[in-house]
Amino acid sequence: MFILVNLKAYPCDPIEVATAAKDVAEESGVRIAVSPQAADVRRVAETGVETWAQHVDPNDYGSHTGSTLAEAVADAGAEGTLVNHSEKRMKLADIDGSVRAAERAGLETCVCANNPAQIGAVAALGPDSVAVEPPELIGGDVSVSTADPDIVEDAVAAAANVDEDVDVFCGAGISSGDDVAAAGDLGATGILLASGVAKADDPRAALEDLVAPL
Amino acid sequence: MFILVNLKAYPCDPIEVATAAKDVAEESGVRIAVSPQAADVRRVAETGVETWAQHVDPNDYGSHTGSTLAEAVADAGAEGTLVNHSEKRMKLADIDGSVRAAERAGLETCVCANNPAQIGAVAALGPDSVAVEPPELIGGDVSVSTADPDIVEDAVAAAANVDEDVDVFCGAGISSGDDVAAAGDLGATGILLASGVAKADDPRAALEDLVAPL
Amino acid sequence: MFILVNLKAYPCDPIEVATAAKDVAEESGVRIAVSPQAADVRRVAETGVETWAQHVDPNDYGSHTGSTLAEAVADAGAEGTLVNHSEKRMKLADIDGSVRAAERAGLETCVCANNPAQIGAVAALGPDSVAVEPPELIGGDVSVSTADPDIVEDAVAAAANVDEDVDVFCGAGISSGDDVAAAGDLGATGILLASGVAKADDPRAALEDLVAPL
Amino acid sequence: MFILVNLKAYPCDPIEVATAAKDVAEESGVRIAVSPQAADVRRVAETGVETWAQHVDPNDYGSHTGSTLAEAVADAGAEGTLVNHSEKRMKLADIDGSVRAAERAGLETCVCANNPAQIGAVAALGPDSVAVEPPELIGGDVSVSTADPDIVEDAVAAAANVDEDVDVFCGAGISSGDDVAAAGDLGATGILLASGVAKADDPRAALEDLVAPL
Repeated sequence: MFILVNLKAYPCDPIEVATAAKDVAEESGVRIAVSPQAADVRRVAETGVETWAQHVDPNDYGSHTGSTLAEAVADAGAEGTLVNHSEKRMKLADIDGSVRAAERAGLETCVCANNPAQIGAVAALGPDSVAVEPPELIGGDVSVSTADPDIVEDAVAAAANVDEDVDVFCGAGISSGDDVAAAGDLGATGILLASGVAKADDPRAALEDLVAPL
Repeated sequence: MFILVNLKAYPCDPIEVATAAKDVAEESGVRIAVSPQAADVRRVAETGVETWAQHVDPNDYGSHTGSTLAEAVADAGAEGTLVNHSEKRMKLADIDGSVRAAERAGLETCVCANNPAQIGAVAALGPDSVAVEPPELIGGDVSVSTADPDIVEDAVAAAANVDEDVDVFCGAGISSGDDVAAAGDLGATGILLASGVAKADDPRAALEDLVAPL
Repeated sequence: MFILVNLKAYPCDPIEVATAAKDVAEESGVRIAVSPQAADVRRVAETGVETWAQHVDPNDYGSHTGSTLAEAVADAGAEGTLVNHSEKRMKLADIDGSVRAAERAGLETCVCANNPAQIGAVAALGPDSVAVEPPELIGGDVSVSTADPDIVEDAVAAAANVDEDVDVFCGAGISSGDDVAAAGDLGATGILLASGVAKADDPRAALEDLVAPL
Repeated sequence: MFILVNLKAYPCDPIEVATAAKDVAEESGVRIAVSPQAADVRRVAETGVETWAQHVDPNDYGSHTGSTLAEAVADAGAEGTLVNHSEKRMKLADIDGSVRAAERAGLETCVCANNPAQIGAVAALGPDSVAVEPPELIGGDVSVSTADPDIVEDAVAAAANVDEDVDVFCGAGISSGDDVAAAGDLGATGILLASGVAKADDPRAALEDLVAPL
């Protein structure tokens, strides 16, 4: 199970969360990564934690102002990137371009989508993984362990129908170790979460709770 | 073989093209449709030709200004719609929404994409058909019958891998009857073309040439 | 005072509203226009009512699929167009392009914006009029006659600072004749409204109420 | 005269350019800043050179993935930011939001636009400065000192008509010290340039040439 902590644009201390994530990963043996804003990738990566970008643009080197070049975040220490997060929806052709840009820069990719049909669609673009973010679970109090289990299972089936090598992550509805275990039981091999750790009073304790059942 | 004539925003007479298309379709037995701007759907449909919208928005009835509601173009006489044309690229979530909106309104759907990977992606959204628009063929003088045949064959294979019920159209590189025949040989069951008919001095003759080998 | 009824994508009968608007305009002497979706411009214009598009794209004739060409809606009978409605926000360069496109096609223009600063900005692009749509009034139950009057007065001042020839319309918070009168007292020379007429059980009665104080 | 070197997504060494800019600024007394990608803001700022972001998003702290928060680049050491660069065109409402976000974070702002009308528009949003990027000068070999001088003078007049406190920069057509001097003669108080320095074999020599006539 892979745990990716998205720091979004929260007013948290990225270094505090990164250090906690690195320590809990080492102590538990669970793979944990932290995804800060582009401006913080380098200092988060310097803590030694696995670091992911929140987005990369589809462009190559060149005349592009205000873009996030895949090579730039890779050079800063990122090892992977989210693409098409529900808060950064992209055109299909640009999702394809960003996956290609990330591959070119050696970044692992996780492409987000809303429902099983879109999960099948993004799986066809050949990313390393996809994350299903059911709208009914995003930002709410409903956890994936209590919601309709079809949501994740159908996403896993949709991805497998297109490409069996694409991992499926659960991109919403996770706030406890029980949720992580439930996502795993439904076929997810990773989870995305954000406020449950990034806005926790004690990020380290929140991470320890998440990995406890693993 | 299905021939869809996209009138784009060309300064042509939509009624002249529509009448020619209707006549040639009746004489030849080949299915031919015309796709005008939204403002012209009703008068084109009133000629009796099969009429397609160039785009529908993902929204339902409601507070949406400047949108093209699927029900509005269906009510005006459209029987189908293009989605995600290379000149109207959409976010993945909106392509999904527009296909759902078109289904809701009883419109047939053809979703466009750039390359085989994206063709697989849009096929996963369950449209009636997809159209591959290889960038090297769009708007140029290269025809699909002389270009690398892998372009269309790979698109057909990518769609079939995801959903065998999705037809694949050739969305660029068609300007003659030979091109239509070549597209058919490569597995396409329809073609999209635009200036070759819409900007022709004699649209009827251009259409007759296209259907001659069929 | 100019009254523009935006039909949005409402499930109303455009012809019923258009006919009512035409009749009330003739009886009262108040200028009233109706703004349907692009697909309905022609049949609405054929009722004889003043007809506006809800949006035009910044492009000229050419290879543009799914666009709303200014010339196409003008040819269908539109006499004006909204630009940058709060439900169709545009890039600044495209607002400029759409105003230029509308001018080219002989369409009157009304560019919408959120607040006095943005009203000043769009006034600088030289449209015929601008409409202020304060977010706190959009779609709500608060009317401009009871809200903070600074909202409209500041917009009028911002437009006048940039270009004294640009009219200012009140783009939200209008549902009664009192609201129309209040908007006029604040310096607005026109109003935009939508559901108050388009979704009324009796659009004619709703319009008669609106023009009563004028 | 203020010289802002935009590093875009060029494959240059940001630290080499930053160090050269810092040294030339100190030696010449001319204000020079460097604008790297978000991922490089911190290490560029650590050289001591004045550092600008290439873009900030209109959002505040919160659930925003893949955004560039104004506070994040300010915390990394940025003192200013470009907004609405021709390679990062924004919706009008978002330009307003980004200027407000930059102000909130204490960043100086320079909003770019295409022509005098749009320069007037962005000046109305109250930025510290605006930059005119005439399309005929962008990325080409035509310099502002040989092009039609009306381009810059009209932009200066358009901004002054709206707000006399807004500085006007020349955002294209600069590659030599003569161009800098010509821009100043036309009323510009700053210049934006990119490849002339960032892709130069010797960035320091390029900067020394630019400041020589000042």
